Amino acid sequence: MELKALHKLGYGLYVVTSRKGDRFNGQIANTVFQITSEPPTIAVSINRQNLTWEYITASGVLAVSVLCQETPLSFIGRFGFKSGRDVDKLEGVEYRLGETGAPIIIDNAVSCLEAKVINRMDVGTHTIFVAEVVGAELVSDRTCMSYDYYHQIKRGKTPPSAPSYVPEQAPRTAPRQKGTAWKP
Amino acid sequence: MELKALHKLGYGLYVVTSRKGDRFNGQIANTVFQITSEPPTIAVSINRQNLTWEYITASGVLAVSVLCQETPLSFIGRFGFKSGRDVDKLEGVEYRLGETGAPIIIDNAVSCLEAKVINRMDVGTHTIFVAEVVGAELVSDRTCMSYDYYHQIKRGKTPPSAPSYVPEQAPRTAPRQKGTAWKP
Repeated sequence: MELKALHKLGYGLYVVTSRKGDRFNGQIANTVFQITSEPPTIAVSINRQNLTWEYITASGVLAVSVLCQETPLSFIGRFGFKSGRDVDKLEGVEYRLGETGAPIIIDNAVSCLEAKVINRMDVGTHTIFVAEVVGAELVSDRTCMSYDYYHQIKRGKTPPSAPSYVPEQAPRTAPRQKGTAWKP
Repeated sequence: MELKALHKLGYGLYVVTSRKGDRFNGQIANTVFQITSEPPTIAVSINRQNLTWEYITASGVLAVSVLCQETPLSFIGRFGFKSGRDVDKLEGVEYRLGETGAPIIIDNAVSCLEAKVINRMDVGTHTIFVAEVVGAELVSDRTCMSYDYYHQIKRGKTPPSAPSYVPEQAPRTAPRQKGTAWKP
């Protein structure tokens, strides 16, 4: 099998957020997609080890911010390569509370969605949450970041916990890469 | 709600095929995603009214071809705006049979996947099939067609049965558009 064939699937790049009580967290994800239009529902795939997974499971609500092409790598790194168990990812980030109580990230967003979980399916390391959209907002007219653009142009990385991770053989002279935790 | 916020989600463009006995069919889809990497699994969302849905349900196998940017609209129209109940969509199209017996479309493909359904979830008008990848192949080094490119550059249409369909108000002087059947 040529597993790189899977790299040809197309995605956007998102911050998915949720809450547990009055605690907030969010993470980078590339697997957010619309499933039905009437009523509008989306599916979001989240790694079961992630704090955001725990929060979505606890509260049954989530928000999605579609990131723009200009999103700095530092912003993606904050939400993608750190754990909310170690740091408060939302500190210093512009967000507002939606009607579900989930934090909706405004920084670098092209559009935002807010949704309530109506079904879920566990698939190995990940869970697909299906959620009905209860809020949708256009934030800016900037161009959206595609997952391909993130890799090809921004030279972004994919951590081992991502669904689309494929191990690359490290150059013999390079030091072993330190374990990272994008955890989408 | 600004439902156009949902249009900012990013997708590729695919032909999803399946079989029922020795009959084959395929359709255009934009919702194909990798869910886990170990083992490699994908999720595919298909409209429950579609013949391809019936075939996937019957055989439990499917194939996905990632379309290139140069894919002609006539090819997309063949798989997207016609029903396999009326025409043999694969007539004259280059394909080969995979190990699952599903037809794998080679024409206009950048890469191809073949998969066996391991789980499913019904969500209103659509079903999310989760399938383990049993074959993956890079076909060409052409650029993949994004759903955004299909709409913005190729001026492609989305039929009412698509998950991402949002009705547009027709110009007053224009004749009513004839019902179409992309049925992703």
